[in-house]
Amino acid sequence: MSNKRVYASIITIGDELLIGQTIDTNSAWMAQELNKLGIWVKRRVAVGDVWDEIWNALDQESKQSQVILITGGLGPTADDITKPLLNEYFGGKLVVDQAALQNVKDIFEKYIKRTMLDVNLKQAEVPDVCTVIQNKRGTAPGMWFEKDGKVFISMPGVPNEMKGMMTDFVLPRLPKMFSLPAVVHRTLLTAGIGESYIADRIKDFEAALPGYIKLAYLPNFGMVRLRLTATGENESEITAEIDRLFVDLQSQLEDVMVINEDKNLEEAIGLMLAKHGKTLATAESCTGGYISHLITSVPGSSKYFKGGVVSYDNTVKENVLGVDADTLDNHGAVSEETVFEMATAAKELIKTDYALAVSGIMGPGGGTEEKPVGTVWVAVAAKSGTVTKRFQTRYDRHRNIEVTAINALNLLRQTILNDLKTIS
Amino acid sequence: MSNKRVYASIITIGDELLIGQTIDTNSAWMAQELNKLGIWVKRRVAVGDVWDEIWNALDQESKQSQVILITGGLGPTADDITKPLLNEYFGGKLVVDQAALQNVKDIFEKYIKRTMLDVNLKQAEVPDVCTVIQNKRGTAPGMWFEKDGKVFISMPGVPNEMKGMMTDFVLPRLPKMFSLPAVVHRTLLTAGIGESYIADRIKDFEAALPGYIKLAYLPNFGMVRLRLTATGENESEITAEIDRLFVDLQSQLEDVMVINEDKNLEEAIGLMLAKHGKTLATAESCTGGYISHLITSVPGSSKYFKGGVVSYDNTVKENVLGVDADTLDNHGAVSEETVFEMATAAKELIKTDYALAVSGIMGPGGGTEEKPVGTVWVAVAAKSGTVTKRFQTRYDRHRNIEVTAINALNLLRQTILNDLKTIS
Repeated sequence: MSNKRVYASIITIGDELLIGQTIDTNSAWMAQELNKLGIWVKRRVAVGDVWDEIWNALDQESKQSQVILITGGLGPTADDITKPLLNEYFGGKLVVDQAALQNVKDIFEKYIKRTMLDVNLKQAEVPDVCTVIQNKRGTAPGMWFEKDGKVFISMPGVPNEMKGMMTDFVLPRLPKMFSLPAVVHRTLLTAGIGESYIADRIKDFEAALPGYIKLAYLPNFGMVRLRLTATGENESEITAEIDRLFVDLQSQLEDVMVINEDKNLEEAIGLMLAKHGKTLATAESCTGGYISHLITSVPGSSKYFKGGVVSYDNTVKENVLGVDADTLDNHGAVSEETVFEMATAAKELIKTDYALAVSGIMGPGGGTEEKPVGTVWVAVAAKSGTVTKRFQTRYDRHRNIEVTAINALNLLRQTILNDLKTIS
Repeated sequence: MSNKRVYASIITIGDELLIGQTIDTNSAWMAQELNKLGIWVKRRVAVGDVWDEIWNALDQESKQSQVILITGGLGPTADDITKPLLNEYFGGKLVVDQAALQNVKDIFEKYIKRTMLDVNLKQAEVPDVCTVIQNKRGTAPGMWFEKDGKVFISMPGVPNEMKGMMTDFVLPRLPKMFSLPAVVHRTLLTAGIGESYIADRIKDFEAALPGYIKLAYLPNFGMVRLRLTATGENESEITAEIDRLFVDLQSQLEDVMVINEDKNLEEAIGLMLAKHGKTLATAESCTGGYISHLITSVPGSSKYFKGGVVSYDNTVKENVLGVDADTLDNHGAVSEETVFEMATAAKELIKTDYALAVSGIMGPGGGTEEKPVGTVWVAVAAKSGTVTKRFQTRYDRHRNIEVTAINALNLLRQTILNDLKTIS
């Protein structure tokens, strides 16, 4: 392991984080990007808009880390005290930055189209002891401070503003300041098997890993992502070794592997469909459009996803999809027979190669003795026939919807795989 | 302000948080629940699965807070060291808890249906110096430790397991241990106006607030939630005062207020529709089902939401919804004419009182000079006619989809309001 390891701390500022109204999605993204550069996040700390709390966090984190990333507290309202505090912490004085001022004016002219307030103009003020990071997506500029070989970077908490500054300015600049090791990642995604079973299956592989290569288990909704990370001085050497190990790992998990890249299930399905020029439709009841949302979150999904029907009410299953009224009457909306018809009907109606259909009970209401909350039927219609499967989830409504979407997409993936084998 | 204020720190443990593969949604929920009890979260800290880091975090946070909530690091794999560490920190020894053991066995029998591994059985071991918190939703038990009048609570990082333990055990028990002030919140949601404009409009109101009542601005995707929080000894007194102020605040923001409860836009729409016995359909192109997902995230939405069509491809707009081919040819899929037809067609097809239609370009590809990425047309068909509106967003694909959904739902809300006035 390199003895020059560079550590980072992330400080997020804002009462909204401590009263629980904001979920912090920034830190995860920042950590991923820093990891790619070979910078390790050691701690993440969230503090309120309180002078002493912020000051102490700066003191404390700079004792442990060379890179201190700060987000939040730069808004125009009175409770946003980060900028004056940083100004005092680094002993500067506040001056107007002309480029930042022009940016504020432009944004108001182009998008907000209201008269600027004094507080908006004040956003263009910055300490004269920092390097200003211009904000192309919002009104608050970022600030880069250096002190005793450490760097402190203050950015807005708005995710796309922070990401823009990181991508354009911070991430290219950090490697110029620190001597960073080479870092190589290899990631694969599994589905349908728990973390502890994977760990048991590959325990010999894991025990034999060299010290500079780590394996991380990243479970999420019935899927587990496995990430190998090699850190060292010689990039080509560690790349060769991690690639050799990654081939071995893939062969050990072949039956449960979704994809051998850092992609999610809907991306993996999209790549398969696009590669073979196949198209997809959905017919969703209980997931209410969440599956088509996941599919269409992938840029370029219009190449293979033609559309879907959210047949929440039975009249929509009948009148739009054409599910037989008798099927609904005799077997109910949550049944193998109904999802079978939903899938085959959607495939016909939307004229696609595959159609995925889901019907279930997500809760909290709607469960019965025979079909409790969490009962789900999934069907996939393909050239080679229609596959159905029953799932049982056991969470609250939101998580039931998410887990059901993953289960359904995984059945779709397996069916496409088999279908492509059958027809080729 | 009470001088007995009780503070909490939240420590989240796990390398997955520091390498950025997991977004921490737990802390926000925990903070909200603690706030309701009158416990303030002072700091949130995330550390890796590293012995010294966890130990130091326990030392550091217990200097500042009386309640230390710890999540994560309780899994069955070798990198999960939280339990042995807590055992040593509080000077106990590990013993098998029979109830926890039975629970592990039950879960394997009912849901996992595989042979248990030794590591799974070890999850039933707990330090003999803690009160065990049984886990009804997973295999790892929680632990409640007390030391020097402070309480340390360790729970799994899996959200629904943590929430179950908090709800069943932790939240009812904390008020028995600490003398907590009365806390009363009043929340309202606004749409279509920025944080700084609201602040400017209500600056006199804000300046006149008594010291024991705080106002928080919680902006999210073009909406701002305003929360008044009163803290004091006498609950009925502070309730009377906060209610008086809340009436005043509502009257000052009447034109931009969505709802005067702590609910989101889709819940507010659902309440309106349910109250008046009206029904809704959707026809989504660029949002790909995300709007119907939001609508159906609300329990009980099947009462008013009948379904929708995700008409991603133009053939689906034509063949399923019945949009005129000439309209698509002459004006394009992203046009006022097309969303107008999508909305009116969906209302007919699905037989509802209202239909919401959206078509736009979410990026990164697909933009043109005339219709750049972020161009969106929204239409709402109602009894009183069909309303259309153009929006321009300026973010990345994911955020464009989210912002477009909010814009569309807000137009739907306004249209329903006007329509109900017109027809009544």
